Amino acid sequence: MKELNQLFFPKSVALIGASPHEEKLGGIALRNLMGLKGNVYPVNPSYEEMLGQRCYPSISAVPGVVDLAVIMRPAVEVPAILAEHAGKARFVLIVSAGFAEVGAADLQDEIIRIGREGKLRLVGPNCLGIFNPYHRLDTMFLPHASQKRPRRGNVAVVSQSGAVMMCVLDAIRMANTGVSKAINYGNAADLDAPEVYEYLAGDDSTAVVVSYLESVGDGRRFLEAARYLSQRKPLLILKAGKGAGGRAAAFSHTGRLAGDYRVFHSLMNQFGLREVAGFDELLDAAKAVSYQRPAPGNRVCVITNGGGSGVLATDECSRQGLELPELPEVVRNLLRQDFPSFYTVANPIDLTGQVRIEDYRAALLAVRDAYDGFLVIALTGVAGVTLGLAEYLRTFKETVGKPLVVHIAQGGVAPRLIRLLEQAGIPVYRSPERAVRGLAALLDSRGGWHG
Amino acid sequence: MKELNQLFFPKSVALIGASPHEEKLGGIALRNLMGLKGNVYPVNPSYEEMLGQRCYPSISAVPGVVDLAVIMRPAVEVPAILAEHAGKARFVLIVSAGFAEVGAADLQDEIIRIGREGKLRLVGPNCLGIFNPYHRLDTMFLPHASQKRPRRGNVAVVSQSGAVMMCVLDAIRMANTGVSKAINYGNAADLDAPEVYEYLAGDDSTAVVVSYLESVGDGRRFLEAARYLSQRKPLLILKAGKGAGGRAAAFSHTGRLAGDYRVFHSLMNQFGLREVAGFDELLDAAKAVSYQRPAPGNRVCVITNGGGSGVLATDECSRQGLELPELPEVVRNLLRQDFPSFYTVANPIDLTGQVRIEDYRAALLAVRDAYDGFLVIALTGVAGVTLGLAEYLRTFKETVGKPLVVHIAQGGVAPRLIRLLEQAGIPVYRSPERAVRGLAALLDSRGGWHG
Repeated sequence: MKELNQLFFPKSVALIGASPHEEKLGGIALRNLMGLKGNVYPVNPSYEEMLGQRCYPSISAVPGVVDLAVIMRPAVEVPAILAEHAGKARFVLIVSAGFAEVGAADLQDEIIRIGREGKLRLVGPNCLGIFNPYHRLDTMFLPHASQKRPRRGNVAVVSQSGAVMMCVLDAIRMANTGVSKAINYGNAADLDAPEVYEYLAGDDSTAVVVSYLESVGDGRRFLEAARYLSQRKPLLILKAGKGAGGRAAAFSHTGRLAGDYRVFHSLMNQFGLREVAGFDELLDAAKAVSYQRPAPGNRVCVITNGGGSGVLATDECSRQGLELPELPEVVRNLLRQDFPSFYTVANPIDLTGQVRIEDYRAALLAVRDAYDGFLVIALTGVAGVTLGLAEYLRTFKETVGKPLVVHIAQGGVAPRLIRLLEQAGIPVYRSPERAVRGLAALLDSRGGWHG
Repeated sequence: MKELNQLFFPKSVALIGASPHEEKLGGIALRNLMGLKGNVYPVNPSYEEMLGQRCYPSISAVPGVVDLAVIMRPAVEVPAILAEHAGKARFVLIVSAGFAEVGAADLQDEIIRIGREGKLRLVGPNCLGIFNPYHRLDTMFLPHASQKRPRRGNVAVVSQSGAVMMCVLDAIRMANTGVSKAINYGNAADLDAPEVYEYLAGDDSTAVVVSYLESVGDGRRFLEAARYLSQRKPLLILKAGKGAGGRAAAFSHTGRLAGDYRVFHSLMNQFGLREVAGFDELLDAAKAVSYQRPAPGNRVCVITNGGGSGVLATDECSRQGLELPELPEVVRNLLRQDFPSFYTVANPIDLTGQVRIEDYRAALLAVRDAYDGFLVIALTGVAGVTLGLAEYLRTFKETVGKPLVVHIAQGGVAPRLIRLLEQAGIPVYRSPERAVRGLAALLDSRGGWHG
């Protein structure tokens, strides 16, 4: 799908409905587009100049053929505007809402027809479009003051919903990771998730794909593209519109039928595809796979300084299909010698509130060979948890090379400790269950992406 | 259970194992105790004075009878120390670990026997003890620098685990709410959850009780006390140690059998008791019920400016047993006149990324009488969401008086908007699903606490 290179790395972009006013959506979008590594052409018949750029009355007046035109005009005007793009643009991204999602299926059919006749590839309508920090492409009508952009990174976002894309981008930024590409394709009148999946499978800057969808157009095409991608890199799918209410809401949102979720779910399983249960689960898993490479196996060791947190983690492991095998006898004997009698030498290993950070190191070294993945719980409310823990965990991660996640709640050294750990590529979570879900994303073998 | 007044509001507290050194646990605990509205007696045979206070060689030397003695000495020393308390203390809180939770059941039986013989009520062993900000009682060996304390409020915390109590206290602080009383009772050698539940049922400063437990001693006693409490105020229970692994971990933690979770779960349902699924769910529900009074009904209206977020909320409503009935026809017609054609006038109401805050007000006023509870989703990444929204929502909450929760992700005015809303008693959540779970805690009728 090299064709999509033109969409994600356009040499030239026209903005139909550009505005000089920064409070208007066409003004916000223009400002965000101006950073592009390429030419930007504002189009608006009311202006000759805009932000120091020449402004064009219509796409016909723009020199040459643009790789991407972005339309931000009311839905009723879109058919006529789109018709002018034949021969003048390759991709046309229709931001405007007011098509199938509000019942105007005819209007949407009309733009599909006009697009086909004009040999135009359409993105949208009813979408935010594209964010590609490697090309400084940003079609989103969201002010930077309201929606900070994440830095460059290895997570691609493919979202039917603009709102969810916004939230995912923000969460990626807050998780100290970054984005390779993001696309919100809205009503999917033409470009749909499968084509983007195939493109991202071969995209070197993308290590993991996070995808939110409500509806699937051609089911077989979707499943095959998803399988193709997930055999190459982690693909995390959140399917919304699950119940009857959700399906109706999904239809009002993008004008496509969400289908029967049970059928979808069962097909996903058959195709070995990984689904996440909700928004938080999507972010937790995305964070984990953006930090570390998934690995096979499901045998986990938990090392904690809080008994209850260890019990909660154990419960979640069992829900996630992760096993917590007992400590091997030799490990148990070793740790029994080293540790005070009130530590629990089992799995979880409970170092209690009287922990010293050296105990974490001793425990990790003892169990390193016997397990596939590790969860370290460090409650920073107690006196013994200090910043030195970050160095132990960093060394462990670098030498052992198996999945390692950390749960830290808050308090004391927590903010600095979290920063140090995440700089070292160790994802930190605020609850035991979320940490286990992150670890599960790194250990699950169904996806096949680490095969 | 007025007896427990002495425990939560002791006039005098002795600390056995007090230390002048702030890096030692006995030093941290002493500093935290010094704020008490009452007398504090440090006990340690090696010192005559400590932090400007007279220090006593043993409990026998302390004048009179103390309401509460706190023992922080190694487990093997505890029986002898405890024996000295007969006639010198009413409650004895044993912080020390190393009893049934590490297999030393004999040692635990011994202290139970000594306690009985000496007419002492025991708390613990293996626990952090008590935090009562209304009496400035704080037995936790956690430095304030590492574990900030929440302010006074209306949430009581009853936790078998110290770690979970720490995390819950921190989360309550971060959620801009406060604590009435908190107790971590550990191995429950004597004092157990039911007695605390009964006490809290009559405690005026407590509006909601959050409880974490792994095991239940006398099942019938537990269920009856829980029902008694939950008929008076919201009681949220998180039961951990659910699977076989979790049960083993729970036993290592407090030395009590976690029992078969399915039996527990089914009994909880029979008794009309509300269980939450995990740590995040516990916090989300606690936040909601600490902000607002629960109300009957389960008909919800969702007002959003992001379609996908509305779909995710709808899915979660269906998982939580909340209904989203269609808008009444008169409401639909009214809003159709007011709103641009690309807004979705259904339930959820989707005001799209082009929202202006007046639209939220128009929507809320139109639906106020037709629903039992409301979820407002305000994605602040778009230009139209401003601080003025807080005023609309505050007015709505005050005049309509039905449960209202908000989902805000982040960006732009989010931090200030969240602060304003939470000051107005409207809880804000970071994901659509978490917001719905908060709303469900305010609408669920099974608990009976709003009857």
